[in-house]
Amino acid sequence: MSKLKGKHLITTMDWELDDLVKVIEVAEDMQKNRYADKYTKLLAFRTFLMFFYNPSVRTRQSFEAAATELGGHAQFLEPKSMRLKTAKSAGETVEDAANVMSRYGVGLGIRILESKIAHYGDGEKLLREYAKYSKIPIISMAHDKYHPMQSLADIMGLRKHLGKNLEGKTFTLAWGKGALARSWSSVQAALLLYSRFGMNVRIARPEGYDLDPEVIEYTKKQCEKNGKEFFITDNQEEAYEGSNVVYCRNWTTPNAYHDGEFHKEEEVEKSLKHQDWICDERKMKLTNDGLFIHPMPIDRGNEVSDEVASSKRSIIYDVAENRLHVQKATMALTMSDFEG
Amino acid sequence: MSKLKGKHLITTMDWELDDLVKVIEVAEDMQKNRYADKYTKLLAFRTFLMFFYNPSVRTRQSFEAAATELGGHAQFLEPKSMRLKTAKSAGETVEDAANVMSRYGVGLGIRILESKIAHYGDGEKLLREYAKYSKIPIISMAHDKYHPMQSLADIMGLRKHLGKNLEGKTFTLAWGKGALARSWSSVQAALLLYSRFGMNVRIARPEGYDLDPEVIEYTKKQCEKNGKEFFITDNQEEAYEGSNVVYCRNWTTPNAYHDGEFHKEEEVEKSLKHQDWICDERKMKLTNDGLFIHPMPIDRGNEVSDEVASSKRSIIYDVAENRLHVQKATMALTMSDFEG
Amino acid sequence: MSKLKGKHLITTMDWELDDLVKVIEVAEDMQKNRYADKYTKLLAFRTFLMFFYNPSVRTRQSFEAAATELGGHAQFLEPKSMRLKTAKSAGETVEDAANVMSRYGVGLGIRILESKIAHYGDGEKLLREYAKYSKIPIISMAHDKYHPMQSLADIMGLRKHLGKNLEGKTFTLAWGKGALARSWSSVQAALLLYSRFGMNVRIARPEGYDLDPEVIEYTKKQCEKNGKEFFITDNQEEAYEGSNVVYCRNWTTPNAYHDGEFHKEEEVEKSLKHQDWICDERKMKLTNDGLFIHPMPIDRGNEVSDEVASSKRSIIYDVAENRLHVQKATMALTMSDFEG
Repeated sequence: MSKLKGKHLITTMDWELDDLVKVIEVAEDMQKNRYADKYTKLLAFRTFLMFFYNPSVRTRQSFEAAATELGGHAQFLEPKSMRLKTAKSAGETVEDAANVMSRYGVGLGIRILESKIAHYGDGEKLLREYAKYSKIPIISMAHDKYHPMQSLADIMGLRKHLGKNLEGKTFTLAWGKGALARSWSSVQAALLLYSRFGMNVRIARPEGYDLDPEVIEYTKKQCEKNGKEFFITDNQEEAYEGSNVVYCRNWTTPNAYHDGEFHKEEEVEKSLKHQDWICDERKMKLTNDGLFIHPMPIDRGNEVSDEVASSKRSIIYDVAENRLHVQKATMALTMSDFEG
Repeated sequence: MSKLKGKHLITTMDWELDDLVKVIEVAEDMQKNRYADKYTKLLAFRTFLMFFYNPSVRTRQSFEAAATELGGHAQFLEPKSMRLKTAKSAGETVEDAANVMSRYGVGLGIRILESKIAHYGDGEKLLREYAKYSKIPIISMAHDKYHPMQSLADIMGLRKHLGKNLEGKTFTLAWGKGALARSWSSVQAALLLYSRFGMNVRIARPEGYDLDPEVIEYTKKQCEKNGKEFFITDNQEEAYEGSNVVYCRNWTTPNAYHDGEFHKEEEVEKSLKHQDWICDERKMKLTNDGLFIHPMPIDRGNEVSDEVASSKRSIIYDVAENRLHVQKATMALTMSDFEG
Repeated sequence: MSKLKGKHLITTMDWELDDLVKVIEVAEDMQKNRYADKYTKLLAFRTFLMFFYNPSVRTRQSFEAAATELGGHAQFLEPKSMRLKTAKSAGETVEDAANVMSRYGVGLGIRILESKIAHYGDGEKLLREYAKYSKIPIISMAHDKYHPMQSLADIMGLRKHLGKNLEGKTFTLAWGKGALARSWSSVQAALLLYSRFGMNVRIARPEGYDLDPEVIEYTKKQCEKNGKEFFITDNQEEAYEGSNVVYCRNWTTPNAYHDGEFHKEEEVEKSLKHQDWICDERKMKLTNDGLFIHPMPIDRGNEVSDEVASSKRSIIYDVAENRLHVQKATMALTMSDFEG
């Protein structure tokens, strides 16, 4: 039986680095041998359950395709039509729901963030509560704090374009203005994982856009442990200078949740005051022929110029494709007897 | 060809007892050999159509997983997005819809109850109309009158925990207060089927909570035929005393439908006046080490105490799992050439 | 590799006649050998993506079943829950969406018409934009201008009931009153394709119900090239006289879109003024024992009488079934290496 069988993936912090490398290596082989017999039986006739509290494009498509390619089937479930107990209404407890789903499926993916929660951290709490009662692996399909699959897909993309050894490569996480008020899940997942792979980490953001202090602390410690650079600045040029990868994305202020709600419009309004915070050709020229990376969907014209997003150095479609492969690999390793 | 091929399952009353036993025996073997080759080809590449007028958790998950495990695929269809003819709007007739679906799929499940109908009995009428035109089996996924799959799952659970011979075991159906205004489908299906298996039947409910007189009449006759006990009481203790199984669930008054609508709020309000009508540890002590059974979702704290619902004698998760197996068995026997 | 692999199908005008005949011939064999091994592996473990901007009954069921029968899986996606960029809101561009979907799936079906677009032609433009960026075939599942799969299913039905040579058979397209304000997609697709198969074409409609002039022009030219009859009349009897097939369906006036919106209620009101425009037994008696054909759903009592719709000469269910087969054939030929 695989060492990873039965394991939840809520954040990469819960997994050993070797096991994360294993996921990526399996995913790389799955990409090469996409419909090979060795993979298409792993979840044959099995059900993977997907709980989308929030809608999604890529996440839904890539998880559902992953189950299909492993021979199984993913059920698309939207909790608006599930009678779950909430603070305000009678219904089923997580204990009951998780116990029953453990009888029907081999894994459960959950997506919950933005307006579907009342306070930052509530999504993580819900996933942890499911994990407490579930007999099958709980997989984050993005929640308020982390998006582990996105960060694994990122690393797979960087290995392809920068080489398998990412040690000492420089990663710039740059805040971008935007009309969509993005949550912290993808960028925080990136910080956690890129730093573990030995990359230098630079964060450029305007005053008032700090991320979760625990994530920053963890990232900083990884960089220190690895003897790598870590800094946060409000000077974009400083962060781009000589970098190998620029990840420019919008995210909200720490004040996005207040009075028990997510304030999207307020955040968009604040964000659009920072008109200079866009990843454009001028800034990319400061890098060391840097790649452009982004979890998509891209807010073109706000986060990044069309020119950069559609340039040769943009690896966005490769990374989007990798979502499929790393998810397949994770599902195979945690939900079947496959050992990699 | 299987004797049962092509047969509708709208209520267990339409089936011979031997055929219902066959479903359960096949389900028991399917549980033991869940992904065995002998079962995973039965609906290979076939489509099972699911019409959810009302949303559902377990029913959707278990039917969709059943189709997957038989090698086929269940389509999740919500009639809000179907252009069917209604009293109020132009659209397609049941004759046309049923004839066309018979060309695409090998079976059609329908769920319709509560606020999706105007009068008690309308759901049953709709299923019967589909059955009239359909060339493929119509399966109730719960409607206003019956929920045959739930009752088959119940019996499979009782056989596991009380032994295969249920003859003479005592079944207590107890009304419970609740915040969710449950329809009569599951409890009526239980009365019809448990009585056929030779069980003693006791119903405890407050004044004003009588069920469909036809169902009561049928149940009573089964008990008489089998020489078994049957009574209805408003004394909970009398009904629990020495019982082998307690099924405590909320249901509405016969007045839930009036003026062409389902009055959920009224029913919840009435129900919550009966604060003593809960299945708790004190009452369970009166039983003969009785099992607790429930179709889920459970309204913990209203229908039943947490202590009882999570106790060793609670078989709710087993029964929920059985939904999958009895549905697989029914689909295999009515939609393929499988003979059991 | 199949000559047709990778080809989009937005309108039959983009395809050579031989290739359309090939689709129908493959479909005819697929009907005879519905679950044969030679077909059930063609899309094994592959994903077909379905974008339903508008809901649908038959289209959804038949495409999803088609993918299942080819061994693959169709994802049911409703763009209300997709974060695509629109004129009014930030979101993803078609360039980005199409590029990413090309990594996950082997084909993309799109349905967009009626109230989901602002002007006649916008649906076609969207499909063409997807086709521009997509690396996988784009298939129309009905859009404002055409519904190519419906017309292929029609021809397959006519070949069964009139014989394989349709040359010189007479086709009457008759407008019918209706309570549902139908778009032009199905009837225009019929004109384009029936005329190419050498049929005589007659259109009967009241003043004010002309179709797209480009479609009429194309149809007329086909008829001229083939030496066949073509006329438009407001005299129903003239159009029915001696005809082999009557296709009676409601469609909107050219004024259905104005002020950037689709005006359903206006169209229904206008339509119902023409109470005599119904296909009934009296008119069918004028035909040469003509077939009745319709893309469904039928508005019985408006477009056509119950008597005609349910008569022996009505081939509506056969044609509805054919949707499945021609879609399977098209998917096999454009998305796999199958050569027919």
